[in-house]
Amino acid sequence: MRPIIPDYLAEALGDVEPDNSGDLAAYIPELAAADPERLGVAFATVDGQVHGAGDIDVPFTIQSISKPFAYALALADRGFAPVLAKVGVEPSGEAFNEISLEGGTGRPFNPMINAGAITVHSLTGAEGSGPAERVERVLDGLSAFAGRRLVMDEEVCASEMAHAHRNLAIAHMLRSHDVLTEDAGAVVDGYTRQCSVLVTTRDLAMMAATLANRGVNPLSGEQVVPERVVRQVLSVMLSCGMYDAAGDWTTQVGIPAKSGVAGGLIGSLPGRIGIATFSPRLDPHGNSVRGVSLFERFSSDMGLHVMEVPSAGRAVLRSNRVVGSGPGALRVLELQGGIGFAGAERVVREVLETAPPETRVAIDLTRVHAIDDVARRMVLEIARRLTLDDREVYLVDPEAVVPDPEPGDGGRVTVVREVGQATLPSA
Amino acid sequence: MRPIIPDYLAEALGDVEPDNSGDLAAYIPELAAADPERLGVAFATVDGQVHGAGDIDVPFTIQSISKPFAYALALADRGFAPVLAKVGVEPSGEAFNEISLEGGTGRPFNPMINAGAITVHSLTGAEGSGPAERVERVLDGLSAFAGRRLVMDEEVCASEMAHAHRNLAIAHMLRSHDVLTEDAGAVVDGYTRQCSVLVTTRDLAMMAATLANRGVNPLSGEQVVPERVVRQVLSVMLSCGMYDAAGDWTTQVGIPAKSGVAGGLIGSLPGRIGIATFSPRLDPHGNSVRGVSLFERFSSDMGLHVMEVPSAGRAVLRSNRVVGSGPGALRVLELQGGIGFAGAERVVREVLETAPPETRVAIDLTRVHAIDDVARRMVLEIARRLTLDDREVYLVDPEAVVPDPEPGDGGRVTVVREVGQATLPSA
Amino acid sequence: MRPIIPDYLAEALGDVEPDNSGDLAAYIPELAAADPERLGVAFATVDGQVHGAGDIDVPFTIQSISKPFAYALALADRGFAPVLAKVGVEPSGEAFNEISLEGGTGRPFNPMINAGAITVHSLTGAEGSGPAERVERVLDGLSAFAGRRLVMDEEVCASEMAHAHRNLAIAHMLRSHDVLTEDAGAVVDGYTRQCSVLVTTRDLAMMAATLANRGVNPLSGEQVVPERVVRQVLSVMLSCGMYDAAGDWTTQVGIPAKSGVAGGLIGSLPGRIGIATFSPRLDPHGNSVRGVSLFERFSSDMGLHVMEVPSAGRAVLRSNRVVGSGPGALRVLELQGGIGFAGAERVVREVLETAPPETRVAIDLTRVHAIDDVARRMVLEIARRLTLDDREVYLVDPEAVVPDPEPGDGGRVTVVREVGQATLPSA
Amino acid sequence: MRPIIPDYLAEALGDVEPDNSGDLAAYIPELAAADPERLGVAFATVDGQVHGAGDIDVPFTIQSISKPFAYALALADRGFAPVLAKVGVEPSGEAFNEISLEGGTGRPFNPMINAGAITVHSLTGAEGSGPAERVERVLDGLSAFAGRRLVMDEEVCASEMAHAHRNLAIAHMLRSHDVLTEDAGAVVDGYTRQCSVLVTTRDLAMMAATLANRGVNPLSGEQVVPERVVRQVLSVMLSCGMYDAAGDWTTQVGIPAKSGVAGGLIGSLPGRIGIATFSPRLDPHGNSVRGVSLFERFSSDMGLHVMEVPSAGRAVLRSNRVVGSGPGALRVLELQGGIGFAGAERVVREVLETAPPETRVAIDLTRVHAIDDVARRMVLEIARRLTLDDREVYLVDPEAVVPDPEPGDGGRVTVVREVGQATLPSA
Repeated sequence: MRPIIPDYLAEALGDVEPDNSGDLAAYIPELAAADPERLGVAFATVDGQVHGAGDIDVPFTIQSISKPFAYALALADRGFAPVLAKVGVEPSGEAFNEISLEGGTGRPFNPMINAGAITVHSLTGAEGSGPAERVERVLDGLSAFAGRRLVMDEEVCASEMAHAHRNLAIAHMLRSHDVLTEDAGAVVDGYTRQCSVLVTTRDLAMMAATLANRGVNPLSGEQVVPERVVRQVLSVMLSCGMYDAAGDWTTQVGIPAKSGVAGGLIGSLPGRIGIATFSPRLDPHGNSVRGVSLFERFSSDMGLHVMEVPSAGRAVLRSNRVVGSGPGALRVLELQGGIGFAGAERVVREVLETAPPETRVAIDLTRVHAIDDVARRMVLEIARRLTLDDREVYLVDPEAVVPDPEPGDGGRVTVVREVGQATLPSA
Repeated sequence: MRPIIPDYLAEALGDVEPDNSGDLAAYIPELAAADPERLGVAFATVDGQVHGAGDIDVPFTIQSISKPFAYALALADRGFAPVLAKVGVEPSGEAFNEISLEGGTGRPFNPMINAGAITVHSLTGAEGSGPAERVERVLDGLSAFAGRRLVMDEEVCASEMAHAHRNLAIAHMLRSHDVLTEDAGAVVDGYTRQCSVLVTTRDLAMMAATLANRGVNPLSGEQVVPERVVRQVLSVMLSCGMYDAAGDWTTQVGIPAKSGVAGGLIGSLPGRIGIATFSPRLDPHGNSVRGVSLFERFSSDMGLHVMEVPSAGRAVLRSNRVVGSGPGALRVLELQGGIGFAGAERVVREVLETAPPETRVAIDLTRVHAIDDVARRMVLEIARRLTLDDREVYLVDPEAVVPDPEPGDGGRVTVVREVGQATLPSA
Repeated sequence: MRPIIPDYLAEALGDVEPDNSGDLAAYIPELAAADPERLGVAFATVDGQVHGAGDIDVPFTIQSISKPFAYALALADRGFAPVLAKVGVEPSGEAFNEISLEGGTGRPFNPMINAGAITVHSLTGAEGSGPAERVERVLDGLSAFAGRRLVMDEEVCASEMAHAHRNLAIAHMLRSHDVLTEDAGAVVDGYTRQCSVLVTTRDLAMMAATLANRGVNPLSGEQVVPERVVRQVLSVMLSCGMYDAAGDWTTQVGIPAKSGVAGGLIGSLPGRIGIATFSPRLDPHGNSVRGVSLFERFSSDMGLHVMEVPSAGRAVLRSNRVVGSGPGALRVLELQGGIGFAGAERVVREVLETAPPETRVAIDLTRVHAIDDVARRMVLEIARRLTLDDREVYLVDPEAVVPDPEPGDGGRVTVVREVGQATLPSA
Repeated sequence: MRPIIPDYLAEALGDVEPDNSGDLAAYIPELAAADPERLGVAFATVDGQVHGAGDIDVPFTIQSISKPFAYALALADRGFAPVLAKVGVEPSGEAFNEISLEGGTGRPFNPMINAGAITVHSLTGAEGSGPAERVERVLDGLSAFAGRRLVMDEEVCASEMAHAHRNLAIAHMLRSHDVLTEDAGAVVDGYTRQCSVLVTTRDLAMMAATLANRGVNPLSGEQVVPERVVRQVLSVMLSCGMYDAAGDWTTQVGIPAKSGVAGGLIGSLPGRIGIATFSPRLDPHGNSVRGVSLFERFSSDMGLHVMEVPSAGRAVLRSNRVVGSGPGALRVLELQGGIGFAGAERVVREVLETAPPETRVAIDLTRVHAIDDVARRMVLEIARRLTLDDREVYLVDPEAVVPDPEPGDGGRVTVVREVGQATLPSA
């Protein structure tokens, strides 16, 4: 079978590839020396399937994408109250590296700006943890989210420490407000190590999928952080994750997300999917140019938006039954509801991987009220693949929800208005 | 059958009733003269069921709750581009009545602050509409959301116009930036009329349910605005609806919401439910004190939060089959997934309203991985009701997801670990 | 006698004339239609002498230059407390037309931004004055400052009212805070009339000189406003008069000043001088481009800066005596202190207009510790003029404070180190 | 002779002494342990006279009062351009310890806030100076302003360094913008040393007088910094010296000033006087409570305000001549202009210290148009003293500028309308 999602993803990469606008992060030589043409994307479903295209196994430093995960760890390690007492959850409308603290308390506005993330780093691990223990805790935690042991890039780390003036400023300011109670220099050092953890696009997709899957890593099955923590983290990612264009992101893309200056970008749609992209050129907000384009496309193509009513994957296949018997038996796959990527993807796997023995197959869309672009391709791919496997395929589509049903490449479908029209020949 | 949801809602009202903190909106005599003890709540499901408790049929003025609906109408009437060119989608972090316009363009930050809402009012109806046509359009539109003909409170309207200094200031400022191109005074007049539309808590719940139901009024079946518009409106409600505590609301409650100074508060969870509360005393942010408490409770009790993985209602009932036959036949209701309010509510209706003829009924929770407090009550109420109807009820609950299964009031269940244990007697 | 100051001023105009950068105020057609090449400057001393060059008798609208004078009138009419309760004295760091009000009180930051000036207009005249009375009071007051009856430009006024959206916005906002207690529209109308008063550069210089002269119009002798009011007005002009570049102005120029969008600019140095310039092209701050250049030059050339130690004019001429008698009698004019423009100007008039009968005249600079560029020219002009009148002139200048004493054009001086050296020949 | 000014100052101290509002600076133990009742005031004239009352010889740390002097040193050492490129001159409207840097450049708004002062410290001494050289340069410079060798309080310095979190934050932030190019920690250390220099109230008055005297220390005669630098420093002190109440200070007090958290407060009125007060309790702005009261009084009593037209001291005594001869000879002291403290003080010294031999003395006020409260006392004290020395004293006061001429304590004056009336008896 042709890999539908990887094909789709490769096509999407091809479309954004010509866009070489934006610049590499320039503040340290190691980031400025990155290959600007790197490009990758990976989807990880909540049951652990990873679909990717491009450079999904090239390692790069996680940078600010570590922020939501470290926030999750701090909430899990210390509980909500101590963390919320130190770091707020309000969008600041400011760039990531501004010193913007709440009047009076000196509390950073949220954990996605550096002031908040530095404070959050100081709150990881059990109370009383030393600098090394905090770093160990964060590395363990990020590894648990990724489902494999991660390591740091010591060179990038050393280089960032030599240019950490602003983070040192932030940390001393936090220290002056007693928001930070640890040594300012040591916390910045630890935070810089946290940002220097090496990940691949595949890792990031899996980390995002762990958030989408209620905190359970889809592969290892480990509950990395509690569900309540995940809800908090995703909420903050949605409102504060993309810096000062939060409102545009929330309305147009609608996926809780986080970007890093090394070019990574993750999105996590609860109950549905984890997405990661990698392309090092950044827009003026510090977000990956091509990454943002890809997310806009995914949201638009697949209805991946928190305000889109989702259809639970399982429910898409309403029934899978046989009508009639013998050689004229018709396998009827009855779909229902709104069909999006996640639902269609599950149908592909359930149906094709358990190849039906019947020679005649009907895909019944009578109860489907909407189907997005990607899902439509996938339904047609099911048809094509079945044709190639010598099945005769019917599409029961009385309302033409698949308007122009052309499977291509040797596929063939007969469109009928009701299942009865497909069963006639066997009568 | 005991009304489970109304009981739950009445209990919730009872819990918040003693809280008489906050103050009536004082800026016009008509609002200051409201009965501060009024208290009501209504849930409206996406298939049109309304459950309520308290003063759900008392009319009051819609005020700022009109903002998201007028925004929806403007987007539907003029398209996205012209509206987005005039009004942004960024949380402003400011109180509702601040003049806060984007530098340079003079564009209001979002449609939920007055500057944005006044601009939005000017964009309702077809281009070139006059003041009266705009008001008519808004009244028609709000009525379509509510599913019944609404009217204005002329007295409140007149009184508000006499105190509209700030809105006039805002409108003249917008006019000076050419964001408003109509006569400033006429637009403020129309906007004030929009805010003076009379609604009940029941109406508001139905309006919120229309948003939750992809823009289709659950009762009339009318597609009031397109789905894409609904997504935009809900996104903006989530990030900007609750004024300057947007971050707290997004994380703790997680329901796209909007409040009005007359004491109304609505929430809309896409694909799930519309909620409305009414209690006129306001907190310093201008939100109903008891209303906010109720929403916090609903979110917590029922997992009504956009970042909670929802289970589509339809999917909760995995199968409804009969095992065995004759007098020993066992009706097996197999539930699945995470069961929340919306799912349980649908099971209650499907199962009880189509009373199974079998005398033995098993509710199979084997595939249920989570069930919230309200849903648990509802499952037990199904059991109780079946007992009263002379059925013998089994709860198949191998992992004790309903830890203490006591239906009360004459109900009785037998807990078993697998369906086979319930079928044995019939063998 | 060659007119020294007019020559200096004409030279200064010639130097700035080639600079045609900046733009005419464009928001109303009448201002946009002004002749951009108009250029004038006038100095008015505290004893009523006016020296000018260029278009000093061309009328134009006073615009924002009316603000400090209306502020003076309000302080005089209502007293300090009621005015300070409504309008602050803090630099706002913002452009003139921003709505920037103090949190909580809604008080405009200062009387030089529009919000403050509109409020100030409402406080002119006796308490309880109606709109027409306020306008009359302001017109009378501005006329008293100018020393002649001023009139309004009705056309500009009408045109500005048609574009007064922002001022209406500001007034309604002030009304909503009860800072303004009068009808918002009527106050904006009156304020617009105030801004439409026609003045010439000569008028403005005299108005500024009235402030410099403790509130007494140098010509009419009328005490227009009390001294305490003048101190307040000058202080606010210094810190808030030049909008958002207040600090640069205060340090580099150091003259309490105010500009208007029609191209006027005034400065008032207490006890010394009133200055006005006119050139309609404005910089991005809304200040006259050439006007700012001229003020920078005057401050630099003449030490016209509030932080320069001034020498009271009267004291410059320490003594005016005759040494010896008969034909050999020597008229000794002993100057003292730091000699600036104002001092030198007085010497010019006192000495030359009361032509000394002696044929030998010594200008004794022994006690002069500093002399600025303009004053140096003037001293030499005294010498030149005396030479032409057949006097023999000595400059007693032991420390060479006039380094290169060349009167030019037929003038001749003999430099000596002490008065005795000049008296020798007569011995 | 009764010490007029010290008496006046002692009286002023007595009036503010009961006010024990405000708090000691608490952020380091050494400041919190200060004696809150300390109270002192000193006036230093531009010719080096010091008049004081209270604790004027008690040493305390200079703290932020070092800022304008270090700014003067940096301007003198490096020139205007390099310093202005790094530190602005705009009032920031913010508290002294805020991190408020100009957008884009990261330039501190002005040299009176900590960010500016820290940057200024890094710019003292010749380019390329090391940390120790900068500290040495600042200590030398402050000593030159004071006219005696100053030393540091090492204990306070060490204690402040241990609590320098905020200053370290500021310095790292400045370093990140390349505003600071030296090591952030070393600069903060040097700046802290600068703030730890010990001064007395007397020292501060002399330092302020040096600024008032065009940069020349009145005692040593040393030109500590150029005149142009002094003008810049005084301008910035006026607009930015008193933190976030700059406008109130400029209008009500009108004296370029600077306060320190140890309780010192200085003011410098160009050409007139240097003033210093010491009282450690601070208001919420960080300014000495009693110090501010004293300055308000001095400004009001003596017209010490930059916008008051000053009378140069020298000019007050228009002539000092003898009318008639022999025993009937009348010494006539003709005063002129507006008589303020500085002028009167000079008359006191010139007249009394060169006791006139004549037994009859007339103080001629005919040409005096104004005389302030303190000057009036001083004129009467001259009369009293002359009486005690057996002179017969006439006050020639045709317009009763000294309305109620009662010298008290054995003094006696005869008021006449013209000098002739005093000469008659001798005729």
